[in-house]
Amino acid sequence: MMHPFDPLTSEEIYRAADVVRPHFGRHRPNFRVLTLQEPPKQQMIPFLEQEHQRSQRSPQRPVRCARVEVVVELEEEKNALFELLVDLDQDKVIAKQHQRGKHSYIDAEYMKQVEAACLADDRIQDQIRTLDLPEGSVVVVEPWAYATDGENDMSQRLSMCWFYLRLGGHSDYNYYAYPLDLCAEVSENLGVVKIYRLPTSPNERINNEQRKFDQRRIHSSSLSEYHPELRPSPRTTTKPYQVVQPEGPSFSIQGQKVSWEKWTFRVGFNYREGLTLHDICYDNRSLFYRLSLAEMFVPYGDPRAPYPRKAAFDLGNDGAGINANNLQLGCDCLGTIKYFDAWHNDSNGKPVKMPNVVCCHEQDDGLLWKHTNFRTQNAVVARSRILVLQTVITVSNYEYIFAFHFSQDASIHFEVRATGILSTVPAEMDAGKVPYGTRVAPGVLAPYHQHLFSLRIDPAVDGHANSLVVEESKALPVNDPAVHNPYGVGYISESSTVECEGGHDLDFTKNRTFKIVNENKMNPITQTPVGFKLLPAYSQMLLADPQSFHAKRSEFGKHAVWVTRYEDNDLFPAGKYTMQSSGGDGIASAIAKRNASGQSKSVRNSDIVVWHTFGSTHNPRIEDWPVMPNEKMIVGLKPVNFFSGNPGLDVAPSTQEKNKSVLYDENASDGTPCCRSKL
Amino acid sequence: MMHPFDPLTSEEIYRAADVVRPHFGRHRPNFRVLTLQEPPKQQMIPFLEQEHQRSQRSPQRPVRCARVEVVVELEEEKNALFELLVDLDQDKVIAKQHQRGKHSYIDAEYMKQVEAACLADDRIQDQIRTLDLPEGSVVVVEPWAYATDGENDMSQRLSMCWFYLRLGGHSDYNYYAYPLDLCAEVSENLGVVKIYRLPTSPNERINNEQRKFDQRRIHSSSLSEYHPELRPSPRTTTKPYQVVQPEGPSFSIQGQKVSWEKWTFRVGFNYREGLTLHDICYDNRSLFYRLSLAEMFVPYGDPRAPYPRKAAFDLGNDGAGINANNLQLGCDCLGTIKYFDAWHNDSNGKPVKMPNVVCCHEQDDGLLWKHTNFRTQNAVVARSRILVLQTVITVSNYEYIFAFHFSQDASIHFEVRATGILSTVPAEMDAGKVPYGTRVAPGVLAPYHQHLFSLRIDPAVDGHANSLVVEESKALPVNDPAVHNPYGVGYISESSTVECEGGHDLDFTKNRTFKIVNENKMNPITQTPVGFKLLPAYSQMLLADPQSFHAKRSEFGKHAVWVTRYEDNDLFPAGKYTMQSSGGDGIASAIAKRNASGQSKSVRNSDIVVWHTFGSTHNPRIEDWPVMPNEKMIVGLKPVNFFSGNPGLDVAPSTQEKNKSVLYDENASDGTPCCRSKL
Repeated sequence: MMHPFDPLTSEEIYRAADVVRPHFGRHRPNFRVLTLQEPPKQQMIPFLEQEHQRSQRSPQRPVRCARVEVVVELEEEKNALFELLVDLDQDKVIAKQHQRGKHSYIDAEYMKQVEAACLADDRIQDQIRTLDLPEGSVVVVEPWAYATDGENDMSQRLSMCWFYLRLGGHSDYNYYAYPLDLCAEVSENLGVVKIYRLPTSPNERINNEQRKFDQRRIHSSSLSEYHPELRPSPRTTTKPYQVVQPEGPSFSIQGQKVSWEKWTFRVGFNYREGLTLHDICYDNRSLFYRLSLAEMFVPYGDPRAPYPRKAAFDLGNDGAGINANNLQLGCDCLGTIKYFDAWHNDSNGKPVKMPNVVCCHEQDDGLLWKHTNFRTQNAVVARSRILVLQTVITVSNYEYIFAFHFSQDASIHFEVRATGILSTVPAEMDAGKVPYGTRVAPGVLAPYHQHLFSLRIDPAVDGHANSLVVEESKALPVNDPAVHNPYGVGYISESSTVECEGGHDLDFTKNRTFKIVNENKMNPITQTPVGFKLLPAYSQMLLADPQSFHAKRSEFGKHAVWVTRYEDNDLFPAGKYTMQSSGGDGIASAIAKRNASGQSKSVRNSDIVVWHTFGSTHNPRIEDWPVMPNEKMIVGLKPVNFFSGNPGLDVAPSTQEKNKSVLYDENASDGTPCCRSKL
Repeated sequence: MMHPFDPLTSEEIYRAADVVRPHFGRHRPNFRVLTLQEPPKQQMIPFLEQEHQRSQRSPQRPVRCARVEVVVELEEEKNALFELLVDLDQDKVIAKQHQRGKHSYIDAEYMKQVEAACLADDRIQDQIRTLDLPEGSVVVVEPWAYATDGENDMSQRLSMCWFYLRLGGHSDYNYYAYPLDLCAEVSENLGVVKIYRLPTSPNERINNEQRKFDQRRIHSSSLSEYHPELRPSPRTTTKPYQVVQPEGPSFSIQGQKVSWEKWTFRVGFNYREGLTLHDICYDNRSLFYRLSLAEMFVPYGDPRAPYPRKAAFDLGNDGAGINANNLQLGCDCLGTIKYFDAWHNDSNGKPVKMPNVVCCHEQDDGLLWKHTNFRTQNAVVARSRILVLQTVITVSNYEYIFAFHFSQDASIHFEVRATGILSTVPAEMDAGKVPYGTRVAPGVLAPYHQHLFSLRIDPAVDGHANSLVVEESKALPVNDPAVHNPYGVGYISESSTVECEGGHDLDFTKNRTFKIVNENKMNPITQTPVGFKLLPAYSQMLLADPQSFHAKRSEFGKHAVWVTRYEDNDLFPAGKYTMQSSGGDGIASAIAKRNASGQSKSVRNSDIVVWHTFGSTHNPRIEDWPVMPNEKMIVGLKPVNFFSGNPGLDVAPSTQEKNKSVLYDENASDGTPCCRSKL
């Protein structure tokens, strides 16, 4: 029996495509998306309530629907994008909409076609010949989605093609170490529409100067290669480290439902957001309806044309789901691992299996809590176990590791690790330092850029009527006769409840804290509303000018915390269609439209969504080259006066009998097992 | 052969006491401190240089010295504090100073004496009788160091005694669940000098009203007890999780020297700072001369007298070293563990062994880096291993877990976890919510407070001449004809080098970054000075009024980043003697004095120290009760253009052969081993 939050099965994908196909007559639809259309929340609420109560009556299941995107070649529009909804209970299309002027995401298959078209073009080959590249080297073309800069008609898709040199021989040579100064623009229908040479010094601009490749750029593979076959032998000092769970893991999984240490939730997955989490409860109390990474934006700070076109919406343009890695046991994940597979579709609408896109495993997390009674010297200590739901995506050069961590103290953390390879551009060997990039290898500039993530938090804190509260800690005044603060040391917290949709900023200097509370449920002991607080990641917001296309397209990058009224299908803070978007589709515009049309509603004590923007201003270090050690960003959600005490207090104290640690023996000779067991 | 950074041995402690004793004639010295006096840096630099070069000549060892503090009962001064330096090579006192008006730290032995004196006092017993406490309950007295509030002469030590009720029977009942409204002040010579009743509502003040204990406060042990013998059975769902290192750990340890994955450093330990790290190198390049937690301050925000006297310097007043826990294998530490012992002394100057005060072990830390070539689908992934040096301290009610994490990418993180039990005060059952505390149990208020830590970073980034650079990222202007930024997306970084000693603030909105650089060593590829950057913990600074004693005593709490010129013995940002200090001894005053006396020196390209203030404004949640789940704070130090690439690139790719993970089998029946191996 499918659960309403379960992703489409392969059979459902197959069937939805069959239902859609006849609606385009003689036109062959290119299937871009065949995914679950999640049911309206108003239908899910009673369903989940019955489920939570373990009611005998089986709850009424909402209609099972698929959301479908196809591109069709019409006479009047070469690449017409349609969005359809398919009722899978009745096998019929219940909505069909022509998304005029919108574009579907970019994928590896299309990128390969663009690369091939580029390399097949005689003018490109002429340019490559002028470069006079080293014998045996290979030219690689990396197509990027075009970030709107106002210079071209955006009604058709346009790809920016960046050229690199790969040293010959091994197919895993790091071609980002040899960016070429060649650039091309390719139309949706694979025509090369423009070719030019890139600037290679701060004062240079796009040009037609046919410079040769500077042979001095060829450098030692130890500086720029990451593949073990292309590197000196690795260090051998790291001894094996294994996680053993002799009684198996503490989680149990039925289908997409995960149960672990009083937590229950459902694992979702779709082509765009990748991993999503649904109906998250602790000890049978509802906390969150849905958690998801909603968008990410990676704008580059190099001001020279055409680099302002480098600004990727890695979810909207590329998809965290379809770019998810096939995770490997013992490599990506340690311990006892449950892998979740997912299904996508090919252009014919056939299901395509994506194995191991999410892993689920436990980790030891050091100490959860400890106290030693100094009078008795009795110590009680509990170790912290966490449950990790991890997915890793590859978007061209970059990798992102996304993980939700569930803790025994009822907190959730969302961890992002950025890794992979920097996007590089050519720089003259003799050009000096530029203020918007870092030289990471001879002739290679890694331009400054930002990574801005939007975490969408759809709360259900003890129910669906929630409020956002902003709390600050401030010193009591001194010398105010109305205030008792005789020694000038008193401080208090002040709260205000947010009434309107909008964006807010962080301020650690005021200890500004954002809480999601349920004003209808008071904690009987603290006498305050039950809630969860956001532990934000303090990050610089979007640097681009507010009038720039970057800013208009990524409105969520303006503020760190947004609150909106819940609306079905309102999942994306930069809009549903981000490919070559030109602004006005984001979270701020949506709020402004509702306000202008008089549809604004209070967000107090209602079904709200909280969006947290965070990320990094990534001014590369050379230590990020050629593959960057992960840069970690962590966001947390923690109960605040929600329970009646420490939710992890009932975790059993740690014992050596269970944990079987080992004492290091300094006298053991090197290289032999050097530990003795102590129970 | 002792290393100059090695802590004193038991034999040296014994000997130093013997050398000191005759210097006090017929007065019997009460030995408070017998610890290593670290050698002057100017002597250590050539020593370490020879050591690093593995020179054949054995480097000349600086004189081995002990620093000694004793309290002596003189005719003219009841508790005279003396500080002495003992040359241990010649067994003679080389310095002796009477520290007039200063006080030694407080310790458990003295606290027991204060408690006993309190309880032996008839007036106290009269007061206790008026409380009419439940049959079988026990009164517990918790003495605290008196935080200067201007109300008393500070020339003698004075202890604040807080009273609690412990439910009878079990000695580990959580007495913080029953704070009483009784309070006493006890003199250094154990006389009870004042007794009064505490305010129990916002508008109440210190009084003499002899109210009875409110019997309605007695509550279920499941709400307030943490000891397993006093609680319902713990959860049984958490299955064992073991770390197996079949070839032993990757570290090797000789004496106090740790070598691990290209890192080398020395472990120090003293009564006050606890764990210290010395001569930290990566791949034989010097990074830091010394890292230490230098101070912490915990001021409470309850404005009502006598609570402004609750403000603890947990290092200066209590000592992270002498309060360090005896760590237990399998409980505090998982895997293969090396424990370091330490030596302290008793009041007679006899050495006292403190076993297992520091543990050293490895942890798996998820993925270090990964890249998948999307063209070949070849993934290369390296797991991150970290080395942890951990110590746990108990300061009355609270616990702190301090850990330095060393990573294979040459970064260091300092992690603080706050846990233990909240300090509580009595609150009338029927009193409403107060704005400076949280009600955590019936009649129990947990007042707001701050934890401010000072991490002392004594850098040696490729040498001892270092500079502090402040970098910010800012948008390029638009419409400025002199600046090329046609699309409004460009941004740059701007750096300034700090010239003078002083304090600086964080600003994430500008991506303000503090770098410690060596201006004399340029990175040949990036063409910028080699450096390390601080990854700060964004925290609210001290809330108390700048004119308050709290602010005057904890000057480091005013700014997040301080830089000073290195001086031997300048280790403590709130001064050497914090017990009942009244201000003027802190980092800001020291800088101001140097400036006023014309001794100010540039901190540019010189031997500097960087101090990072961070912490939490801890407005308790009920989830922090009765023992709080750890609250984590993390500070990092990361190379920035120091190396020629990712320092962890040579970590061998992960393999299942070594890591031996296991697939979860959802079909296994519950409770039985449910995993199958896959190689």
